[in-house]
Amino acid sequence: MNITASDVWSAVRAIREKAPVVHNITNYVVMNSTANALLAIGASPVMAHAEEEMEEMVGIASALVINIGTLSPAWVRSMFRAAEAARARKIPIVLDPVGAGATSYRTRTARELMRVVPPDIIRGNASEVMALLETSGRTKGVDSTASSDAAVELGRKLHAECSAAVCISGETDYVIGNTGIIKIRNGHFMMTRVTGLGCTATALCGAFAAVTSDPAVAAAEAMAVMGIAGEIGAARSEGPGSLQLHFLDALYRLSAEDIERLLKIEMGE
Amino acid sequence: MNITASDVWSAVRAIREKAPVVHNITNYVVMNSTANALLAIGASPVMAHAEEEMEEMVGIASALVINIGTLSPAWVRSMFRAAEAARARKIPIVLDPVGAGATSYRTRTARELMRVVPPDIIRGNASEVMALLETSGRTKGVDSTASSDAAVELGRKLHAECSAAVCISGETDYVIGNTGIIKIRNGHFMMTRVTGLGCTATALCGAFAAVTSDPAVAAAEAMAVMGIAGEIGAARSEGPGSLQLHFLDALYRLSAEDIERLLKIEMGE
Amino acid sequence: MNITASDVWSAVRAIREKAPVVHNITNYVVMNSTANALLAIGASPVMAHAEEEMEEMVGIASALVINIGTLSPAWVRSMFRAAEAARARKIPIVLDPVGAGATSYRTRTARELMRVVPPDIIRGNASEVMALLETSGRTKGVDSTASSDAAVELGRKLHAECSAAVCISGETDYVIGNTGIIKIRNGHFMMTRVTGLGCTATALCGAFAAVTSDPAVAAAEAMAVMGIAGEIGAARSEGPGSLQLHFLDALYRLSAEDIERLLKIEMGE
Repeated sequence: MNITASDVWSAVRAIREKAPVVHNITNYVVMNSTANALLAIGASPVMAHAEEEMEEMVGIASALVINIGTLSPAWVRSMFRAAEAARARKIPIVLDPVGAGATSYRTRTARELMRVVPPDIIRGNASEVMALLETSGRTKGVDSTASSDAAVELGRKLHAECSAAVCISGETDYVIGNTGIIKIRNGHFMMTRVTGLGCTATALCGAFAAVTSDPAVAAAEAMAVMGIAGEIGAARSEGPGSLQLHFLDALYRLSAEDIERLLKIEMGE
Repeated sequence: MNITASDVWSAVRAIREKAPVVHNITNYVVMNSTANALLAIGASPVMAHAEEEMEEMVGIASALVINIGTLSPAWVRSMFRAAEAARARKIPIVLDPVGAGATSYRTRTARELMRVVPPDIIRGNASEVMALLETSGRTKGVDSTASSDAAVELGRKLHAECSAAVCISGETDYVIGNTGIIKIRNGHFMMTRVTGLGCTATALCGAFAAVTSDPAVAAAEAMAVMGIAGEIGAARSEGPGSLQLHFLDALYRLSAEDIERLLKIEMGE
Repeated sequence: MNITASDVWSAVRAIREKAPVVHNITNYVVMNSTANALLAIGASPVMAHAEEEMEEMVGIASALVINIGTLSPAWVRSMFRAAEAARARKIPIVLDPVGAGATSYRTRTARELMRVVPPDIIRGNASEVMALLETSGRTKGVDSTASSDAAVELGRKLHAECSAAVCISGETDYVIGNTGIIKIRNGHFMMTRVTGLGCTATALCGAFAAVTSDPAVAAAEAMAVMGIAGEIGAARSEGPGSLQLHFLDALYRLSAEDIERLLKIEMGE
């Protein structure tokens, strides 16, 4: 397997042409910014969480994104109902276990979602991914600065447990799927000072999964596009405030040439 | 009836002078951006949804805006309580039936609000407006790209059913009220790539209704100002990220000259 | 007591070095923008409200910020649980009584929080602070334009009642603590046209309280940094849209020289 700039560009074009509906059950903090990122790349975001309408809303969607950033019992019920409907319709499910490991409510909810309605893609940082592992004890000592080897090892374990494509974000992003490891070295450090760009990456995974059949490839494309737009945006920004908007502008204007020039992707085993 | 640039400018000045309190029960996605738009035009936004405080909050407001973008049973109860209080105080009610037609929960809620606490202005796209019609079957086949004739016909029907001023957004915006049809041709295609600008238009309808007695005129003024600020903002923007802020700046700096130069409004029957 | 530019700068540096976790239970409108402000100054925001996880989340925090801007019974329960956990861990609590005085639900909730789980810092405008006073009747007639003398008098009374450092925002900000009055004259009028900058000030109080032992000093540092970043941002902005991002950029880039050049702080009794 190999992912070229031309593959990534084809996926971007497919999103722009099909404008896939991506249904998000996501946290309050990032609803606006992730909807804007989905619109900027060319997708059609729906943000809806009412239990009463989950099946119907999933019924018009091409991907479902579940993000546990701000939980409550009612929302957890909606997440399960939506994920069941998504499985019945065979549309891809993306899970972002925000804060798993930080509180047992989050860890428990994320694990249960994984078990009952297995996602196609899981995207988190190293500590969140570690918290999902049945085989690990506690999350202490592992965070987003985990060494690459440790992160890859975590991803492999989680992939073996649940068969989802596992994407671990950090300075380098790792995606572990059926055909090995994909490493993406795009991005800019200033992105860590904008709230919700991790959640945005997850939302974009939904958009790319709607047009790309292999979940690991979809996740890698999403991370590459995130990183490239972040690099373009950061080059024009004096701080994280302006980065927010230049990032969206870069997603909107992203060209084959941008991807060709900036893509840093590498396949491993 | 005729609406001139000078009428629109007088309404903007009235908002800036009186800073009317506009109470919004709106969706999570757009709370921040609609509050900022109301502040930028000169109004005083209140975003409050707790059932416990609806009567008191409506008690200090000059207009009520109800947006069903992210529903839950508790919020629906608050919407009814607030709307009843608004009717008792005779302040204008604006309804945005976001997603009506997409799920039966939304369609049902929007119709019930229309019936029990009739709004003064309804603003939506063609498919949402169609979903509100008692006389239509399903919403399939009608969307924001509906032909002008079809859109106007929908608006007429809904206005006949509920007597609210009906505003249908699209490339051209149509407002159908007691004295005929108003067409507004302002706006920019890039606005469709920013989340919540439809909801912002609805919120501005609230601000203009607070200072303009005829609901159809208020809606038309709001749509014209939205479109003009969008045109000014888009001319300075490289994408939807920067458009967000240039749009707010344009609302804030809007002048009689801007309106005079850009207004594209037309009356029909 | 005296607060110099060098003190403010030391606090900023401490935040950037320690990246204290600030746990926010705040309103829907400002979650995104306050998280971004905390990230821009160098802190680590957590936005979480589920009753199920309050103790654990407070357990990793260095400060707790409670903002009653959008209440519901479930959130009020979480506020009390979080505040009790914060008191048990002896981390600072900051309370923003948004809209106290506007509805009795807000006034009652804010007063009860004050009484049951006394905050270390209370930040609001003059009418909100007045609503918290047991000794006052109704809030009518006092608003953010209250005269300086009236505002200081209110702050003194509330400080005497609850012993929290009381910060009253307005054109001049007043902080009343154990050692007298601090007046901060930084800021820019355009900041009043951006939603949630008051809530952002409160969130920054949390970040500064995490690294500064005296709550009144922490509040004064936060208000000074807010105002200075607002002045720097406004000088580069054509309206409140661009101010949002230039303000965040200014927080991110804030230097000792900026503070030295712009700080307008004054001690009284």
